[in-house]
Amino acid sequence: MWEERIRHAKLRERVVSADEAAACIQDGMTVGISGFTRAGDAKVVPSALAERVKKTGEKLRINLWTGASVAEEVDRTLVEAGLVARRMPFQSDKRMREAINQGDVMYVDQHLSLTVEMIREGQLGNLDVAVLEAIAITEDGWLIPSTSVGNSPTYAMTADRVIVELNTHQPLDLEGMHDIYVPGPRPHRDPIPLIEVSDRIGTPAIPVDPDKIAGIVITDRDDHFSDLAPPDGDTERIAGHLIEFLEHEVRSGRLTETLRPLQSGVGAVSNAVLYGLRESRFHDLQMYSEVLQDAAFDLLDTGRLRFASGCAITLSPGRARDVLARLGDYRAHVVLRPQEISNHPGIIRRLGVIAMNTALEADIYGNVNSTHVLGTHMMNGIGGSGDFARNAYLSIFVTKSTAKGGRISSIVPMVSHVDHTEHDVQIIVTEQGLADLRGLAPRERARLIIERCAHPDYRDALREYYEAALRLGGHTPHVLEQALSWHVRLRDTGSMHP
Amino acid sequence: MWEERIRHAKLRERVVSADEAAACIQDGMTVGISGFTRAGDAKVVPSALAERVKKTGEKLRINLWTGASVAEEVDRTLVEAGLVARRMPFQSDKRMREAINQGDVMYVDQHLSLTVEMIREGQLGNLDVAVLEAIAITEDGWLIPSTSVGNSPTYAMTADRVIVELNTHQPLDLEGMHDIYVPGPRPHRDPIPLIEVSDRIGTPAIPVDPDKIAGIVITDRDDHFSDLAPPDGDTERIAGHLIEFLEHEVRSGRLTETLRPLQSGVGAVSNAVLYGLRESRFHDLQMYSEVLQDAAFDLLDTGRLRFASGCAITLSPGRARDVLARLGDYRAHVVLRPQEISNHPGIIRRLGVIAMNTALEADIYGNVNSTHVLGTHMMNGIGGSGDFARNAYLSIFVTKSTAKGGRISSIVPMVSHVDHTEHDVQIIVTEQGLADLRGLAPRERARLIIERCAHPDYRDALREYYEAALRLGGHTPHVLEQALSWHVRLRDTGSMHP
Ligand SMILES: CC(C)(COP(=O)(O)OP(=O)(O)OC[C@H]1O[C@@H](n2cnc3c(N)ncnc32)[C@H](O)[C@@H]1OP(=O)(O)O)[C@@H](O)C(=O)NCCC(=O)NCCS
Ligand SMILES: CC(C)(COP(=O)(O)OP(=O)(O)OC[C@H]1O[C@@H](n2cnc3c(N)ncnc32)[C@H](O)[C@@H]1OP(=O)(O)O)[C@@H](O)C(=O)NCCC(=O)NCCS
Repeated sequence: MWEERIRHAKLRERVVSADEAAACIQDGMTVGISGFTRAGDAKVVPSALAERVKKTGEKLRINLWTGASVAEEVDRTLVEAGLVARRMPFQSDKRMREAINQGDVMYVDQHLSLTVEMIREGQLGNLDVAVLEAIAITEDGWLIPSTSVGNSPTYAMTADRVIVELNTHQPLDLEGMHDIYVPGPRPHRDPIPLIEVSDRIGTPAIPVDPDKIAGIVITDRDDHFSDLAPPDGDTERIAGHLIEFLEHEVRSGRLTETLRPLQSGVGAVSNAVLYGLRESRFHDLQMYSEVLQDAAFDLLDTGRLRFASGCAITLSPGRARDVLARLGDYRAHVVLRPQEISNHPGIIRRLGVIAMNTALEADIYGNVNSTHVLGTHMMNGIGGSGDFARNAYLSIFVTKSTAKGGRISSIVPMVSHVDHTEHDVQIIVTEQGLADLRGLAPRERARLIIERCAHPDYRDALREYYEAALRLGGHTPHVLEQALSWHVRLRDTGSMHP
Repeated sequence: MWEERIRHAKLRERVVSADEAAACIQDGMTVGISGFTRAGDAKVVPSALAERVKKTGEKLRINLWTGASVAEEVDRTLVEAGLVARRMPFQSDKRMREAINQGDVMYVDQHLSLTVEMIREGQLGNLDVAVLEAIAITEDGWLIPSTSVGNSPTYAMTADRVIVELNTHQPLDLEGMHDIYVPGPRPHRDPIPLIEVSDRIGTPAIPVDPDKIAGIVITDRDDHFSDLAPPDGDTERIAGHLIEFLEHEVRSGRLTETLRPLQSGVGAVSNAVLYGLRESRFHDLQMYSEVLQDAAFDLLDTGRLRFASGCAITLSPGRARDVLARLGDYRAHVVLRPQEISNHPGIIRRLGVIAMNTALEADIYGNVNSTHVLGTHMMNGIGGSGDFARNAYLSIFVTKSTAKGGRISSIVPMVSHVDHTEHDVQIIVTEQGLADLRGLAPRERARLIIERCAHPDYRDALREYYEAALRLGGHTPHVLEQALSWHVRLRDTGSMHP
């Protein structure tokens, strides 16, 4: 069965075991693996490596590069075995997060569109080995990726050696869904010729020099997807406010009922918001996004969404079975691109994307923290949120107004860490309401965010802070000694409540 | 003499006095004027408006939009007369700054490439009147701008009425230096066809419907340029570190001796750094920048710089006389573009620009504050620094390690305001040294920034802070209750010294 998937006859001779493949990974190497939001990861070579080190007791620490977050069996396995010295550019694993926050792993959290530019131009060092999942290898020895594209095209191009994990479990019907395009070298680069969300500008497979393929490991495994929290009252209210706002934009003539290409962040809140569009009056929608989650396919099924461009398909396990069995139905409506293209600043700006991302906390002036709990502890990473928020037609951030049962206010005097400055945040939505910050100065933003978005339990305290700050003056008034006091209180007492 | 400059015969009949032109500006209107870094501003209509209000005592408050900063005779005159309700998107005038920090003027500080996108799409309200300086009006009634292009093309396109300030003092030789291109409407926009720094992709004049031209005011005035602080020992050392770094990049094969297109921010430090390149080994340089200052023309004169693309020419008065008299020499080597193109994220990314901007302060993790003194008081604005830093091949920030005679450390535990997150800051340079932060995690960045960039007087205190923060852990360790304490001390005692 796998034989047919290797259409380049000579490459059939390179089939090896996971252990044999892992043997080419040595201490100090940089290893780039496929995988984006747990879709299309390398699945067996990383564990084989961990097993080997456990057996041999050898000292081995690698730099691990991915597309974005990968499954537990990669991040957790490697980090628990103590094998990860450095990690780039995004993760969302509990154990990896702990190691990062303890300073055991040096984590380089990056705009997801940027990593490969830097790698191709030699700014991040040499890539020794790439381990890339594929569903098939073409006659030319090129790789057809599976459920994500991520950074694989550049890893294939720049790695000294490439190991392929040929996953026979991933449906061959994925073939033709990918569009692989790598921008030319700078400074004489041609414009990327993508004008419509549905444009195909590249090849269906990832170019790779067959001589670099050091081994092909045959696997037969599901992606490690997990269930998303279902929409709840709060996320439904967030979606409601957002849809009301978009309807208002249509009435005012700024948007039509087909809106603009939509981007929707990862996670439960984003999924719920997108889900909310099912019942809206909008039609012929398009997505130009990063990860396509359950809600994207729900919208495709109802016909409300006409086309979805992303760089990975990450579904709940139940939905995955269904979608992967009906890929033929989606082929004309879905394209998967390298993350450098799905998240490209120039294209996001050109298309005029409506970007919806999630904040951990926002401050009264509209600065957003998406990554650092208490300003210090990394949650996941900035991911693609900066690529989209900075360049969008409309940059929207959603968050529930409180977290941890009300002990945390997600609207604070000053965010404890800034990922998105007020310049990149135009709309903030919580279940309490929506603040449209376009064209407003900080003092105007503050009133709106406090009154529209903050939870009533924290509104008075925010008003008090703001009034005290106003007495000290400034374009962006603050009482510096109190600006982070809510976080100090949370750290010391477990709650932001006074 | 002015007659020849109005080549559209019928428009000659629209010549009016400044007072007559100002008469069409009424209370509550939005007025968009030309001008970028004090080059090419509207020079007489704003003052005529202020005069009128002084005489009539009428209540009048306007929204004032510009390209970027404008001369005193605009910002100061209008703000002292109490006529400015709102200001967008950049300023650098002392009186305007005071009014902003007192909350008298609502200031919308914006990425300079973004304003016109939002205006064209109706997100910032209607533009009632545009007042645009021109050196001539073409046979078609189009405007040939003077020393800056700024936002004028979109102001001409979207304003209900256009007033032209035809400045006969500005040399006609400027004609042919401009390249006016306005990207098409979204979401079906074609790629902007600019591939080489020197490409001309538009027209030499700004399209405008002649019927909208409500009046033409003849003026005869210099731009209000002022002298730049000359390079000093510190700025020379900053330039020295930077050149050494760039030479190292050439030796390592990442760059060639022609480097990449250079962007250099405004101000004395940026000018001095660029000036430092005169003595370097680099050649055939190109600039893809915002403002072309004295040093750009010095480099053109020595032949080290081959081509400079910008959106404004802002010179010291002495240099201006010389350059404006020899425009013919520069015609083949200089192009002026709309700020939306000079600062376009997609083009900056495509060209792979080396961006050099100035920080007020940076923190030990590499976050940069370019705008807010003590986190509250606006200095100028973010300007184009975000357009460049986010999308550059290399994003460099320069600053002296101390300010105000050593009472302020420009390297602090946590910046009091974030304009550029660690993701957008790859190199930090002070007169003390250079920190190359590429591919480093926050803990690694901290050690490098403290040891390489901080002033020796503050290094121990920074090390102590960092060690204390490390004990609390986290990806980006902080002692939250002390993070802003240096700023509190400065506010209360006039110095950051303990
Ligand atoms: C911000 C982000 C962490 C939110 O994730 P989510 O799953 O949608 O949101 P949740 O409300 O479930 O919050 C996740 C956790 O953060 C906690 N949290 C939320 N707000 C918090 C706050 N202000 N302070 C501390 N913790 C907070 C929640 O309690 C929850 O904790 P748990 O995992 O222990 O239950 C996530 O969207 C993210 O990583 N974003 C950055 C990257 C990104 O935007 N990618 C998409 C770009 S295309
Ligand atoms: C950051 C910026 C203000 C620096 O300006 P500059 O003229 O190069 O630098 P200077 O060292 O002269 O500093 C300007 C003033 O800030 C003060 N200053 C510098 N660092 C400071 C700090 N950390 N805290 C408080 N004040 C500080 C200086 O003392 C000086 O004050 P003065 O005017 O009273 O003498 C200026 O570059 C700017 O506005 N940048 C933002 C916009 C931008 O980058 N545009 C270009 C993009 S293309």
